[in-house]
Amino acid sequence: MIAEVIAIGSELVSGERLDTNSQWISQRLNALGIPVHFHTSLGDDLGENIAALGIAAGRARLVIATGGLGPTQDDLTRDALAAMAGVPLVEDAECLAAIEALFARRNRPMADRNRLQALLPQGATPLPNPIGTAPGIWMGSGSTVFVALPGVPYEMKRMFDEQVVPRLRECGAVGRVIVHRVINLFGRGESDIEAQAFDLTVRGRRPEVGITANDATISFRVSCDGANEAEALATMEPTLALIRQRFGDLVLGEGSTDVAAALVAQLERVDATLATAESCTGGLIARRITAIPGVSAWYLGGVVSYANHAKERLLDVPRTLLEAHGAVSPEVAEAMAVGIRSRLGADLGLSVTGVAGPSGGTPEKPVGLVWLGLATSAGVSTRKLELGPEQPRDVIQGRAAKHAMNWARLELLRR
Amino acid sequence: MIAEVIAIGSELVSGERLDTNSQWISQRLNALGIPVHFHTSLGDDLGENIAALGIAAGRARLVIATGGLGPTQDDLTRDALAAMAGVPLVEDAECLAAIEALFARRNRPMADRNRLQALLPQGATPLPNPIGTAPGIWMGSGSTVFVALPGVPYEMKRMFDEQVVPRLRECGAVGRVIVHRVINLFGRGESDIEAQAFDLTVRGRRPEVGITANDATISFRVSCDGANEAEALATMEPTLALIRQRFGDLVLGEGSTDVAAALVAQLERVDATLATAESCTGGLIARRITAIPGVSAWYLGGVVSYANHAKERLLDVPRTLLEAHGAVSPEVAEAMAVGIRSRLGADLGLSVTGVAGPSGGTPEKPVGLVWLGLATSAGVSTRKLELGPEQPRDVIQGRAAKHAMNWARLELLRR
Repeated sequence: MIAEVIAIGSELVSGERLDTNSQWISQRLNALGIPVHFHTSLGDDLGENIAALGIAAGRARLVIATGGLGPTQDDLTRDALAAMAGVPLVEDAECLAAIEALFARRNRPMADRNRLQALLPQGATPLPNPIGTAPGIWMGSGSTVFVALPGVPYEMKRMFDEQVVPRLRECGAVGRVIVHRVINLFGRGESDIEAQAFDLTVRGRRPEVGITANDATISFRVSCDGANEAEALATMEPTLALIRQRFGDLVLGEGSTDVAAALVAQLERVDATLATAESCTGGLIARRITAIPGVSAWYLGGVVSYANHAKERLLDVPRTLLEAHGAVSPEVAEAMAVGIRSRLGADLGLSVTGVAGPSGGTPEKPVGLVWLGLATSAGVSTRKLELGPEQPRDVIQGRAAKHAMNWARLELLRR
Repeated sequence: MIAEVIAIGSELVSGERLDTNSQWISQRLNALGIPVHFHTSLGDDLGENIAALGIAAGRARLVIATGGLGPTQDDLTRDALAAMAGVPLVEDAECLAAIEALFARRNRPMADRNRLQALLPQGATPLPNPIGTAPGIWMGSGSTVFVALPGVPYEMKRMFDEQVVPRLRECGAVGRVIVHRVINLFGRGESDIEAQAFDLTVRGRRPEVGITANDATISFRVSCDGANEAEALATMEPTLALIRQRFGDLVLGEGSTDVAAALVAQLERVDATLATAESCTGGLIARRITAIPGVSAWYLGGVVSYANHAKERLLDVPRTLLEAHGAVSPEVAEAMAVGIRSRLGADLGLSVTGVAGPSGGTPEKPVGLVWLGLATSAGVSTRKLELGPEQPRDVIQGRAAKHAMNWARLELLRR
């Protein structure tokens, strides 16, 4: 069953926005054993949309389209599907009720145009959208199944997993599965890690192993096919075990486990609490950690001490220390870590102070110089990072946050 | 002259790699006044490539393809172009000499398969590749010009600018430029805003106006053609002015200006300082603001008061208040805003406390309930948000942060 993914929106073909939905959908379909042979992107033109759907009907048995389901005049997917199939649009009472209920829950009046979102090609099945006004569409035409989903990524992803996958299983489209597993590492460069993994990444090996790097996190991507997920997983398990064993404490974890999640897992394992004091990372560590649900038992909070007097007033860093050594110094990193640990009564106090740039660097303290501090019941230590000076601000902030969290993770790993 | 961009490679349609070449080429063509109406991605299958090139020939006058020009068995673009045009492949002596010279310069023996890269469809013009082995191809077929470039981004980009653009100018394809400007709004729903802009978004209007929504930020996208950039900008200026005037304080700014940048611009304008106290947003506001370079003159810092005792110890929120009303209450939001303002001596103290979910909601305080507090020299006020309960954690956190920053922005706008 060959699939085609269509992304609709003039901002995509003009180059203003990058389409990432098609890649995500292809990964999902691939994992379900449904090979994707085509991606098409096109603008908000009715005639071109009808023609593109017709082309897709001729070369694919499953077509997943995203975008063009909103309430505005340039949202044409409903019309294009109906015209391609040669059926009229009809208002779906259930859809309309769901849209009205959403507006009611949000205490907002419903605009007349939102009523258009309850129109469906005759004979189509609406796919409820639990978090937005645009319902999706499932319809057969000829020998091809067409699915239309909103273009908003988080709505699309949830509806794909909750609404589309079960229907694909029902109609027998799900074949021999391909399973992917990702193991994430942090703390060494990509070429170093690759040099230790030549035996794994060789072409033709089964399971297949690839390496990618993203913002200093290195990922092994292991892929294997099987009659079902359990069989594929069993085939790849020895390879996963080998990677975990060979790379030891560089391993953060699997899947989407990043440094923050790996740190929280260690806090949970040893039942320790953490507090943070951030200067140049400006709340990035706090943000990454609090993005994780249920983290409040381990993460107590922190301070973003951007101005020098914030370090004095919120972290009890003595002014004399700031004046003698400057804000970017091991002495201040130490005082910040000790200060936040004692203020919040945490097991670990973690601090970052540095020059994120692009301005503010000096010959002695260049852009990219960062000091980390880590305070525990055993005392306090500091660590120096040199991340610049050629790197942009967001890279320096991101790397500093990752190195800080990874240091705390390694400290906990030894307990 | 409508253009289509085709990206060839099985790793693109399987979802393993994200195609960014098509976006880059579209931006370039668009700036040259050549509108792109279609993107197609497909795998390394000869029949499918021949068919896709035929479809492109039927709907576009310019087709730019990337990928499939390497020396390996799955590089089929040369064969597909020749088959589509109905001509044989012939070896180009100049191409062969260039490939042999490249290997000689690198002191590496040339593999037999690299000889294949000197094959061209009969009648085609080779496009020299100064930094790789794969020459590009320029050929006419019917009324369409086909251009094939390597898939390696830095080779493709250099060849596009050095080889393709001059040839497009020569054959008169480069027309009027198209200029885009974006105005971002926040504070009202997409359909509400569109209802006030039907006269602008009507089809066929010049300049053209489109509306898109991204995480509750609404963007007007204004596009206009002209003989040159200055002329296009002059034509669109009255439309930009009309949007700014009609939507008043909903307007954040142009281009990539988001709520954080708009807030910082207001702080700068009135020379005021800001401090933040975040509970459910966990440092997201601090993070967004400190991502902006040079913000330290206006942003003093803040507290991430995740645990209740962090609110007491870092923000002086009385324990009795927390016990009487709970952490998610107008009383606590007020105390947090007043506390951080006075701790850091800021002009504005901004606070957020709420239930980000997915757990922790109760009938009285459901997931998505958020209280904001804003303290100034004139006193303190609070605002209630209901962002759930069906929204995921990251959306609730993101929206709460945006609403809080927007409230501070509106407060400063009145000064």
